Amino acid sequence: MQRCLQLARLVVGYTSPNPLVGAVVVKDGKIVGEGFHPGAGEPHAEVFALRDAGEQARGATVYVNLEPCNHYGRTPPCSEALIKAGVAKVVVGMVDPNPLVSGRGIAKLQAAGVDVLTGVEEADCRLLNEGFIHRVLYHKPFGILKYAMTLDGKIATSSGHSTWVTNDATRQAVHRLRSACDAVIIGGNTVRQDNPHLTNHGQGNHSPLRVVMSRHLNLPSSANLWNTDNAQTVVLTKVGANPEFQALLYRQGVEVVELEPLTPNQVMTYFYNRGFCKVLWECGGILAANAIAQGAVQKVLAFIAPKIIGGVKAPGPVGNLGFATMNEALSLQCAEMHVIGSDFLITGYLPKH
Amino acid sequence: MQRCLQLARLVVGYTSPNPLVGAVVVKDGKIVGEGFHPGAGEPHAEVFALRDAGEQARGATVYVNLEPCNHYGRTPPCSEALIKAGVAKVVVGMVDPNPLVSGRGIAKLQAAGVDVLTGVEEADCRLLNEGFIHRVLYHKPFGILKYAMTLDGKIATSSGHSTWVTNDATRQAVHRLRSACDAVIIGGNTVRQDNPHLTNHGQGNHSPLRVVMSRHLNLPSSANLWNTDNAQTVVLTKVGANPEFQALLYRQGVEVVELEPLTPNQVMTYFYNRGFCKVLWECGGILAANAIAQGAVQKVLAFIAPKIIGGVKAPGPVGNLGFATMNEALSLQCAEMHVIGSDFLITGYLPKH
Repeated sequence: MQRCLQLARLVVGYTSPNPLVGAVVVKDGKIVGEGFHPGAGEPHAEVFALRDAGEQARGATVYVNLEPCNHYGRTPPCSEALIKAGVAKVVVGMVDPNPLVSGRGIAKLQAAGVDVLTGVEEADCRLLNEGFIHRVLYHKPFGILKYAMTLDGKIATSSGHSTWVTNDATRQAVHRLRSACDAVIIGGNTVRQDNPHLTNHGQGNHSPLRVVMSRHLNLPSSANLWNTDNAQTVVLTKVGANPEFQALLYRQGVEVVELEPLTPNQVMTYFYNRGFCKVLWECGGILAANAIAQGAVQKVLAFIAPKIIGGVKAPGPVGNLGFATMNEALSLQCAEMHVIGSDFLITGYLPKH
Repeated sequence: MQRCLQLARLVVGYTSPNPLVGAVVVKDGKIVGEGFHPGAGEPHAEVFALRDAGEQARGATVYVNLEPCNHYGRTPPCSEALIKAGVAKVVVGMVDPNPLVSGRGIAKLQAAGVDVLTGVEEADCRLLNEGFIHRVLYHKPFGILKYAMTLDGKIATSSGHSTWVTNDATRQAVHRLRSACDAVIIGGNTVRQDNPHLTNHGQGNHSPLRVVMSRHLNLPSSANLWNTDNAQTVVLTKVGANPEFQALLYRQGVEVVELEPLTPNQVMTYFYNRGFCKVLWECGGILAANAIAQGAVQKVLAFIAPKIIGGVKAPGPVGNLGFATMNEALSLQCAEMHVIGSDFLITGYLPKH
């Protein structure tokens, strides 16, 4: 099953709105076929693995991290392909998260006399596709808030300087994280203050869509994000905002989308319709608080550099949430701590909205 | 050696200005004597261990976490006692940190034909006595800044509410930490806002001196800290400040000390003269920044609760240090991360001042 996840990860960032799936065909204790789903419109992982195995699939065991589908979409159902290939057993990481079809692929296989085992390495399987699962269940992409702060809770100095809070290893980890997401969102302030690239800097193949939320388009006419040679940029703004600046962006290949209202919630709906599974909020504290308050953040990744910068007015990672007492704080679930070079990372999930 | 440290820890908090020392006498692979130094004016650990071993000390090996002394202080030198007892070998955790006497006890033992091995479990030995070592080298107590913050870097809500940021296990760890310190310092703001007890709440035997720094003594006339039944309190203030309030404090058994100037640096000098090894800063961000800027903090303990409270004006743990760019930040050395129940702890040492 871990090999399935390895195969699936080869195309991390590329498969939305579809899940990351890998499949392995095992016969007599040996791998005789492997495959993964390369992306929407392409055959599923099981089909590639069965093709790879050829005649050896007969009587074999197939491992796959997600329940084989049982519906005619852009490709015929995998359950039928597995039955037709004559496999003896299918080991499934997790059932389909869609309650409307969950279990149907497994039932079809069992009805045809195929032995099915489910829930193998399920936690890892769920983690790999947490974006897809959230998308299916809630009709929104999975939102991740990432920030980098000092040990005294600051994302920049009092004067706004922030390069760099964290070390090289952490910044590379952030670039890999971007590569696994469909979009990276910041606000206008971050463009003005940091002029970021928001690319994966060669860490991973996939470049996420770079997104700026800006109400009035009071943005610099020259910015790294307006260079769209290596990655696409979209600016989300209010209906009718600053047509001249919109034209300037268009000329540089930057897409402009007007949303009403221009809120994190509306942005997530828009990106759901665009087929996204995972969206990374890399914004400042005010937009981050707004995204949290509207339920647009499911997971928090706090990178912490063991350094003290000080500053009563130095910005923190999360703006006003309207909480007056400490017991109102949002407790993260499944909080974990990781070491990344000389920095630390604490991750966790926000309570369901 | 670890047994020596265990013995030494039995009186943690009680031995200042002396170090924490444990000694073990081993003969034929068996422990035949144990001892520890209970505090100033009492015999040293080696003396207790030799007494415990009696005649069996002859030809035995003695383990001790700090180099045996070689001077006549309030007690005769341990080097002589070891020689007189006829021990064959002495295993020393670390040499004496005082450069004026360092190595003399060992030299005396070797001159008498005793085999000496040094530097055993040295890192643990140094850690146990980091307060004492700093005191000897710099003529100041060792300063520890402790704070508890949310994952978004806040020690309270925007309205100042802070009970509780962390969980029970962390608060117990803080109480144990207090018990290992000679004094716990806060500022007037913390008295007014949190009205803390600053006791060890039964975690550990030793109660540190509770200290309030207050320039103008504009403090509540009733506060938990003015109850001195279970622990002592001292208020440090400016010369001549608010004599009426000073009288009120005296009547409740609270000591008042006037310092000029009333600064963290001066406070540390005062506590050095009072024989303290370890001082815990549990203050708010403004005093913490002041203490850091004056070199009164050597170690930082940041307890982090995995929760998000938000708040642009919610206070962070460290006030203004005057740093404009991120590269000026004070990088912690030997940073480590620990898990405490559902909370996290990051520790590290500030660069030498």
